[in-house]
Amino acid sequence: MPHIRIANDLPGIRGLMTDRPDTAAPLNAIADTLLRGDSPLTRGERELIAAYVSELNATRFCADTHGAAAAAQLDGGIDLVKAVQHDADTAPLTPLLRALLRIAAEIQAQAAPVRDETVAAARAEGATDTHIHDTVLIAAAFCMYNRYVSGLATVLPTEPGYYEEAGRRITAHGYAAAV
Amino acid sequence: MPHIRIANDLPGIRGLMTDRPDTAAPLNAIADTLLRGDSPLTRGERELIAAYVSELNATRFCADTHGAAAAAQLDGGIDLVKAVQHDADTAPLTPLLRALLRIAAEIQAQAAPVRDETVAAARAEGATDTHIHDTVLIAAAFCMYNRYVSGLATVLPTEPGYYEEAGRRITAHGYAAAV
Repeated sequence: MPHIRIANDLPGIRGLMTDRPDTAAPLNAIADTLLRGDSPLTRGERELIAAYVSELNATRFCADTHGAAAAAQLDGGIDLVKAVQHDADTAPLTPLLRALLRIAAEIQAQAAPVRDETVAAARAEGATDTHIHDTVLIAAAFCMYNRYVSGLATVLPTEPGYYEEAGRRITAHGYAAAV
Repeated sequence: MPHIRIANDLPGIRGLMTDRPDTAAPLNAIADTLLRGDSPLTRGERELIAAYVSELNATRFCADTHGAAAAAQLDGGIDLVKAVQHDADTAPLTPLLRALLRIAAEIQAQAAPVRDETVAAARAEGATDTHIHDTVLIAAAFCMYNRYVSGLATVLPTEPGYYEEAGRRITAHGYAAAV
């Protein structure tokens, strides 16, 4: 049961956002900018970073929502997402994306400088400043969303197919419109 | 030295925001909404939550910037901020604010439901759903900002009085205008 009364039946962050449009607006603006705005990373790759960090944070709602959004926009589909969430080191990723996920994992673990060798390894695979910036900020943002969703003990969806539909909705319409 | 090239001399998040106005805009909108929009918590109290979480995350730039903004807007000034950052359990706070800082500390520690007893203790001191929501989301947001600032190894300001001036600027003009 959530820690606060939510005046609707929507699960996860959707219930919170429906109740608090004042905070929902900038939260969705961040998601649209980071996950769908300009970046050298594709939208699917950025959703995969979000799904991976959410998995590390054990926030099921976000891990599965962004996992579905990643699956809808990546050639590897949900099998690739599940492989990354299970073990990013062995999942069939490009070396660049694998190296960026290692940066994301360090950001998830604590608010501390990413290790020099982790950054150097990503640069050796072709990471630019923008790849590194965007990876760090996406990972950091999901440390916020995950805490918001898990901290208030929001509920999970019960309908079958909920996440697949969310992934399609996000892919088609983005966050401000879809959530 | 920062992990990415920052094309200006500004410290902390200001350098990143100046380089990346696309991501700065929604990041500042979150700060303005959470720290200066409608809330049962005063602006000073909300800055204190931000400064406290940033201290727990050891992100000096944010801890001192928001500490200065809290000091500029709270009767206890910087002495109160420093006492809270040193030990929130013994700092001279209202019982409600102390209880809310305990919620913030749990959010800082991990993405997991705040403990029932921590929420109940805050409610016993008068916390409403909105107090709890706003505390959780402010604490979660600073787990994002702190990771962004620390993760990319941004530099600290060197000018004397930098933070006091930042605190005055934020108090007078807010984030979108001041940062």
